[in-house]
Amino acid sequence: MLDFEKSGGLVPAIVQDEETEEVLMLAYMNQEAWEKTLATRKAHYWSRSRQQLWLKGGTSGHIQEVRAILVDCDLDTVLLKVHQVGGAACHKGYPSCFCHKVERDELKVVSTQVFDPKEVYKS
Amino acid sequence: MLDFEKSGGLVPAIVQDEETEEVLMLAYMNQEAWEKTLATRKAHYWSRSRQQLWLKGGTSGHIQEVRAILVDCDLDTVLLKVHQVGGAACHKGYPSCFCHKVERDELKVVSTQVFDPKEVYKS
Repeated sequence: MLDFEKSGGLVPAIVQDEETEEVLMLAYMNQEAWEKTLATRKAHYWSRSRQQLWLKGGTSGHIQEVRAILVDCDLDTVLLKVHQVGGAACHKGYPSCFCHKVERDELKVVSTQVFDPKEVYKS
Repeated sequence: MLDFEKSGGLVPAIVQDEETEEVLMLAYMNQEAWEKTLATRKAHYWSRSRQQLWLKGGTSGHIQEVRAILVDCDLDTVLLKVHQVGGAACHKGYPSCFCHKVERDELKVVSTQVFDPKEVYKS
């Protein structure tokens, strides 16, 4: 259904909050993550830094319940519409990973943390 | 401002319609595309298929006027909020490139073309 070969086995997945329509994050899926996501309706990705399958929220409890899955015209990019449990997708505690805004050619943090990462990721 | 080195010189850019909040497409930027976008407030990308700088809408006239630029917590992904001239971001004539929806494990086209690609791309 997806073209995993074009980009070396991984396709980018954009994640959008189904309710607020805010774009939450970008992650990557391999075939296994894609199949797990379809089967469980919980977002799974391939962690490029840890080189392993990643159930989003597996540690923090902030899972993403998948409400709709869209695929682009070239079959190489995914858009997940999700319910974000806990109200925060970002591992730094922000609702969205897109916490910086470019203003006058400088980056400015424009979001407020909804959790303290030190409390959530205790290890 | 961005970490272009992490992913080999290119960062993914998610494009969202500022008015409808629909996610329109995903493209890639190199340093030059990023700087041109900042300077002109018109979305520029790096075309991986053509291996050249790409002013989005340069051929079709469907440019993207950049209204806001957000950057993620890792400084390696961009979110552009744009006004999409012509009402269609997809080169196949759909408003959004995300024209397929996964329904019962099959892909179904869920969008309607707003232009005929044969008319817009005459060459």
